Amino acid sequence: MSSMSSLFMKTPSHANPFHKTPINHNTNKPILTRVSTRVIQPTTTRGVKTRVRCGLIEPDGGKLVQLVVPESERDIKKRVANDLPKVKLSRIDVEWVHVLSEGWASPLTGFMRESEFLQTLHFNSLRLGDGSVVNMSLPIVLDIDDVQKDRISGSNSVALIDSNDDPVAILNNIEIYKHNKEERIARTWGTTAPGLPYAEEAITGAGDWLIGGDLEVIQPIKYHDGLDRYRLSPSELREEFEKRNADAVFAFQLRNPVHNGHALLMTDTRRRLLEMGYKNPVLLLHPLGGFTKADDVPLSWRMKQHEKVLEDGVLDPENTVVSIFPSPMHYAGPTEVQWHAKARINAGANFYIVGRDPAGMAHPVEKRDLYDADHGKKVLSMAPGLERLNILPFKVAAYDKKQKKMEFFDPSRAQDFLFISGTKVDRTFLLLDSHLSTKIGPFFPLCSVLILKGQCRPISL
Amino acid sequence: MSSMSSLFMKTPSHANPFHKTPINHNTNKPILTRVSTRVIQPTTTRGVKTRVRCGLIEPDGGKLVQLVVPESERDIKKRVANDLPKVKLSRIDVEWVHVLSEGWASPLTGFMRESEFLQTLHFNSLRLGDGSVVNMSLPIVLDIDDVQKDRISGSNSVALIDSNDDPVAILNNIEIYKHNKEERIARTWGTTAPGLPYAEEAITGAGDWLIGGDLEVIQPIKYHDGLDRYRLSPSELREEFEKRNADAVFAFQLRNPVHNGHALLMTDTRRRLLEMGYKNPVLLLHPLGGFTKADDVPLSWRMKQHEKVLEDGVLDPENTVVSIFPSPMHYAGPTEVQWHAKARINAGANFYIVGRDPAGMAHPVEKRDLYDADHGKKVLSMAPGLERLNILPFKVAAYDKKQKKMEFFDPSRAQDFLFISGTKVDRTFLLLDSHLSTKIGPFFPLCSVLILKGQCRPISL
Repeated sequence: MSSMSSLFMKTPSHANPFHKTPINHNTNKPILTRVSTRVIQPTTTRGVKTRVRCGLIEPDGGKLVQLVVPESERDIKKRVANDLPKVKLSRIDVEWVHVLSEGWASPLTGFMRESEFLQTLHFNSLRLGDGSVVNMSLPIVLDIDDVQKDRISGSNSVALIDSNDDPVAILNNIEIYKHNKEERIARTWGTTAPGLPYAEEAITGAGDWLIGGDLEVIQPIKYHDGLDRYRLSPSELREEFEKRNADAVFAFQLRNPVHNGHALLMTDTRRRLLEMGYKNPVLLLHPLGGFTKADDVPLSWRMKQHEKVLEDGVLDPENTVVSIFPSPMHYAGPTEVQWHAKARINAGANFYIVGRDPAGMAHPVEKRDLYDADHGKKVLSMAPGLERLNILPFKVAAYDKKQKKMEFFDPSRAQDFLFISGTKVDRTFLLLDSHLSTKIGPFFPLCSVLILKGQCRPISL
Repeated sequence: MSSMSSLFMKTPSHANPFHKTPINHNTNKPILTRVSTRVIQPTTTRGVKTRVRCGLIEPDGGKLVQLVVPESERDIKKRVANDLPKVKLSRIDVEWVHVLSEGWASPLTGFMRESEFLQTLHFNSLRLGDGSVVNMSLPIVLDIDDVQKDRISGSNSVALIDSNDDPVAILNNIEIYKHNKEERIARTWGTTAPGLPYAEEAITGAGDWLIGGDLEVIQPIKYHDGLDRYRLSPSELREEFEKRNADAVFAFQLRNPVHNGHALLMTDTRRRLLEMGYKNPVLLLHPLGGFTKADDVPLSWRMKQHEKVLEDGVLDPENTVVSIFPSPMHYAGPTEVQWHAKARINAGANFYIVGRDPAGMAHPVEKRDLYDADHGKKVLSMAPGLERLNILPFKVAAYDKKQKKMEFFDPSRAQDFLFISGTKVDRTFLLLDSHLSTKIGPFFPLCSVLILKGQCRPISL
C-alpha cells in the first residue's frame, strides 16, 4: 500500500512518495524548491524545453498574508507574550489562528476589528484601502468576557495562549467591541434557532465582547495528530501547483467521504477544462479539517478513506493534490460557501466546484433543510469579490441502476437513479477494503456497500 | 397662516405659495417648468447673470426608473389587466408599487426576482450588467400563497389589484420563487424575535412564495388623504432642486416630529456646506410616509407639526424642500438606513445626515435597543454602492440647561444636558401654538413644553 502522501506530492516529473522527499523538521513538511511566484523553472514537455508561465490567480489583496514570525524572533516574541495580558484560546480559536496565520483569509491580518466584522455581516465583503473589494462572508472573531476585558484594559496588545498556557500568538493594536451574538447568528445563518452546531460550540456561551487586532503567530500551528504533514499552507500549495505546471487549479471542498459521484464530477471537470484549452488542470481535493459537528465522519477516518479511494486510481495522482483545509465548519450554507471559495483563491485555485446545498444542513428545529439547495451556487455566482473565480456548478450525479455505475442525473428517467450523500455513509464502511466494494459495483463502491447494508436511501448529493 | 406647501415649492425667485401655482390636475401637483437635467436656466445672483451648472448626483444605474404608463395607454392597460390572473395588494404592497413606480429604488423595474432578492439579503447590493454595484438593502418583494400560485400557473403576467379590485399595475415576465420568511427576517433584522412591526404586519402571515417581475403601473399612486400634493417623486424633486440652483442637496430622513435638536443639526449642516464652498445647499426634509408602527405619530399630525415649526422660521423656506418619502418603515436599523440613503440619491441628494441608531427600535423581547447606536452610521459609511454619497454623521444635540437652548453635546459637562427623542414627543403637543413654546424656550420650543408637562427624560436623540 503506497502512502497517501504520494498523492499530493507526486509531481508529473517526480514519482517519489512524499515521505521520501527531504523533510523540513521545523514544519514537518517536505522541503519544496522555491520557485518564482509567477514563472516556474524550465521543464521538459514532449522533449521540448519550455518555460511555462503558471499564472496562478492572485491572492485577495494582491499578496498572500503570512503571519508566523521568523524562527529567529520566536524566543523574543515568547518573552514579550509572557509579559502581556493573556487570552486563552479554545480549540476553534486555535483553528482560526491557523487559518489567519497562513493567509487563507488574506488580506486579513488578524481577528476582525469592528469595521471588518460589520462589513462581513452586512455585505459579505471587505472594501480595501484602494477601493477594491474582497469577499469575506464569515466573521473571524475572538470573544472575551467582561473579566478578560477588564484585565486587558489599557493594554495595546494581548498574548493568546493555548490550553497548556503556552503562547500561540500576540494580538497587536487591539480593538474591543460588543459581541451581539443574536445578530451575528441571525445574519450568518439566516436563523437563530437553537441547535446550530458552530453557534452552540463557539457563540452561544461566548463572551460579550470581541477583540480584534493584528496577529503575530509565534510558531506554525500543529495538531500532532499524524495529519500535520497533510496540512499544506496556501503558499505551499501554490508552490506545488507551480511545480506541476498547473495552468488551471480546480478546488473541491468536502467534509465527507469521497464517493464516486464526487469522483465522476471531478474527472468530468478536468475533461471539461481540457476541452476549454487548458493543458494541465490540477485538482485540489481539499477536505475540511477544522471543527465539524458530532455526527460528521472524523477527519482521520476521512483521510484514510480518501487514501483508499485514490489508491484505486479513481482519481489520477498525477493531477490531484490532496491537502487539509484547516478551517472550522459553520454549516452556514450560502454564506459559508463563499468563505470556502474565497480561501481557495488564496491557495491558487481559479475554478471552484459548488455542489447542491453546499455547507447546508437540516434545519435544527423544523423538518426541512435549512437552505434552499440551489441558493449556494446562486449566491456564490453573484458574490462580491469572487468575480475572478470561475464557479463550476455541480452536475447532479447518482447511481444509475440500469448502467450499474454513477452517471449524471437524467430527469427523463428519474426512476433509474439512486441518490446518496457522503453525510449518510456509514462509518463502518470506511475501514472496508475498497476492493470488496469494487467487486460489487465497479464504479460505485461506496453506495454498493451501502445498498447491501440496506442503508442507501434516495437523498440529494 | 401660510400654507406649508409654500415651504417646499417656494424658490428663491418665487414667493408664491404652492396652491397658487398652476396645478396639473392629473397628478394634483403644480406644473413645474421643465429645465435641462444638468444645466438650469440663467439666473441672477448679485446682479450678475450667470449660468449655473447644477450637477445633481446621478440616479443609481444612471437613469431614473419611471414605471407609470403614459396617460394615452392607460385604458388599454386596464383592459389587459382585466384579462390577467389577479394578485390583491395590501396597503404596504401598494406603497411599494408607489416606491417602485417613481424610481426611488432605481434601477429596480419591479418587484424583485430571486437573484435580486438573494443579493439584497446577502450583500445589501445589486451588481448591474456593466459590473457596477448599486446599494439595495431591503427586499422589495411581493408574496403570494399556494392558491394564488396555482391560479397564476403558466401565465407570464399578472394584474395587481387594490382593495377595491381596481387594477393598479401589471407585473410582466414574472418569476415565482420560495419565500423563506425566517431567513428573510433574520438577514434583514439580525433577529427573528417576535414583535418586529413590519414582520408582523407583512411577513409572518404572508404567502410562501414571492413573485417578481417588471412593473407597468397604470396610474400614479394616490392616497386621497389631503397629503398627496406633498408627495413629490424623485423626478419632481430633482426639478425643484434645479429650479432653486441647488449645488448640494442634503437629505434628512425622519419619521417623528421635528424638534430643535434636528433643527440645530440641519442649520449647522447648511453652515458647514457653505464653509466647504457650496453656494446654495438645499435641505430635503423628508418625512417617511408609508407604514409605521402603531405607537409612532401619524403622518398627518407630523405634517402639521412640520408646518408649524417651519412657519416659525426655524428652518429657512428659501432653502428647504419638505416632501413625503412614500416608503414603508422596516425598523431594521443599519440595514434599513442604507435604503433610506440610497433612495435619496435617486431624488438628487448627495449628502445624507445619519443620526444615532437610525431606523432603530427597542428589541421586541429583550430589554435593550435592537441595534448598537453607532452601527447605522458605520455601516452606512462602508456600504457598497453608496460611495458617491457624502455621509454626515449626526452630531448629538441636547438641551443645554445652562444656555437654555439646544447645543451640540459636550461630554465634559454632561450634567448640563437633557436629551429628548422625537419618538417620545407627546402627541398633544403637536396642536399647540408654537408661539406658546417660543415664549418659554426661544430656540427649544418642543422640549420646553415637554419639560413643563413633566415628560422630558434623558434619552438618546
